[in-house]
Amino acid sequence: MQNTNEAMRNKTQYFLGIDGGGTKCKAIIVSQDKQVLGTGIAGPANPLHGFEQATASIVKSAHSALNDAGLSDQLSLNDLVAGVGLAGVSLPTLFEQMNHWQHPFKQMFLATDLFIACLGAHQGEDGAVIITGTGSCGYSYVNQQSHSIGGHGFSYGDIGSGAWLGLEACKNVLLSLDGIIDKSALTPLLLRHLNIETASEMVEVIAHKPATFFAQMAWCVFRAVEQNDPLAISILTQGADYISNVARQLWKTNPPSISLIGGLSDLIKPWLADDIQPLLTEPKASPECGAIVFAQQQWMHINTEFYERSL
Amino acid sequence: MQNTNEAMRNKTQYFLGIDGGGTKCKAIIVSQDKQVLGTGIAGPANPLHGFEQATASIVKSAHSALNDAGLSDQLSLNDLVAGVGLAGVSLPTLFEQMNHWQHPFKQMFLATDLFIACLGAHQGEDGAVIITGTGSCGYSYVNQQSHSIGGHGFSYGDIGSGAWLGLEACKNVLLSLDGIIDKSALTPLLLRHLNIETASEMVEVIAHKPATFFAQMAWCVFRAVEQNDPLAISILTQGADYISNVARQLWKTNPPSISLIGGLSDLIKPWLADDIQPLLTEPKASPECGAIVFAQQQWMHINTEFYERSL
Repeated sequence: MQNTNEAMRNKTQYFLGIDGGGTKCKAIIVSQDKQVLGTGIAGPANPLHGFEQATASIVKSAHSALNDAGLSDQLSLNDLVAGVGLAGVSLPTLFEQMNHWQHPFKQMFLATDLFIACLGAHQGEDGAVIITGTGSCGYSYVNQQSHSIGGHGFSYGDIGSGAWLGLEACKNVLLSLDGIIDKSALTPLLLRHLNIETASEMVEVIAHKPATFFAQMAWCVFRAVEQNDPLAISILTQGADYISNVARQLWKTNPPSISLIGGLSDLIKPWLADDIQPLLTEPKASPECGAIVFAQQQWMHINTEFYERSL
Repeated sequence: MQNTNEAMRNKTQYFLGIDGGGTKCKAIIVSQDKQVLGTGIAGPANPLHGFEQATASIVKSAHSALNDAGLSDQLSLNDLVAGVGLAGVSLPTLFEQMNHWQHPFKQMFLATDLFIACLGAHQGEDGAVIITGTGSCGYSYVNQQSHSIGGHGFSYGDIGSGAWLGLEACKNVLLSLDGIIDKSALTPLLLRHLNIETASEMVEVIAHKPATFFAQMAWCVFRAVEQNDPLAISILTQGADYISNVARQLWKTNPPSISLIGGLSDLIKPWLADDIQPLLTEPKASPECGAIVFAQQQWMHINTEFYERSL
């Protein structure tokens, strides 16, 4: 109880926010009075693609943020209250596994990457987000109820994402190399990107590659769209129509607004349906800031409970 | 030279035909006078999914065929002239690797699974084949020129195949579970097949699964088609239209006819376009019999060359 009261009085508690995805892991350190002290970055942290790699990336990004804050000499990870938002942990088994991790922090609060992204975008208030980056997903958090749409993963979900655009480009270029459809502006763009000439070379290059590899081809679709290529326009329209549908589903949960986030959001936004455009607002803060909001809410909650019980 | 002349005179040369694919490896042993003596079967033999596994399956199926022929006591693999047709070896690097295998046979002639399938279907004559099983591919062999269409692999090619049908079913059922499209007869069929109820359970079950896993879901599409499900009919029509297009491309190479082979051929055939139906003929023999034709042609060719040089 003494420790808890101490914690309650302790105005210098530091918080760590983690946003871990399939490509990279971002960390931010914030003081109790919400000053950003440092940030860090590390490699992939989606436990679906490896528990060891995910936990290593989280620890590495946290150390990097401590260094950036100039706090490495004074603080260890064990002093930090961490809010950790991760891709992949919407799968119950992965959530369990990550939650049983013998983490190095003072306390760890685990959530999905979507939840912290939504908290960040709406600064802890109710709202919805649609993420379009390597993957795609919709998520709303309204009246303490969460609801997610899509985001089921490459190659059967994540329509409209970078990986999906890259995969559709590959499929269609293979069809064009086989003479099944006409070649279009997309064909030379993709062949040049992959530094190949034939269908069989293409298969050798793309076989067994992860979503991130396909996402790196998404720019070919946008470039071909700039050149008014009908095939690329049809692919992008199909992806954007799906995102518009995701927005319509989210809107049924009554969020005050929807924010588009992720690396492709600015490129996709103009292609969304007319009825969707007025529902969109700019995100207020990043997902890792949302992880801080989450950590502070949970930490406050725990300490209030302890405090009340100790009275 | 003496050995070669002996071989030429030797009427008891035995031939081994191998048809190795992603799911299984079939072997057949045939005498010089074309009598089938025994057959064998073993596991996957596509070197794209593992060189060690492929070579082990080839050897195992060959031993199994020797046993079946009752020849295990009299012959070793070293007495057999093998025609080996394998999936995957259309990739030059895999062809090289397999061709450098320290194989246990008297002689090994390596070709693609498509080539031996085509030789089998048309008994060594010119012709074309379209394979629809776990994967899909078109291939023609006319005037000693081979031409292949599609077959680029799961999940960016192989349209109209079992794996493709299963993947499209999964994609659409996920959309229906998210409320993006209406549920159809396909939804309960697939959920029951996978023994699951929700989208997140589905993702846990299908993530990182190979083409063979998705091919096992193809029956759900055909069952839903029987129930006049518009979604399933649209998926099957899209797959069949692609196969019709493959047939049209193959026809440009002037094959006398096209044979449909593979596990789905009977189910897909009625859905092919009206202009394609008259071009189709039943395959005359199996791919492993085509491997025998190939081995005998090559063996004859080598021995004739040696014989002519020795004159």
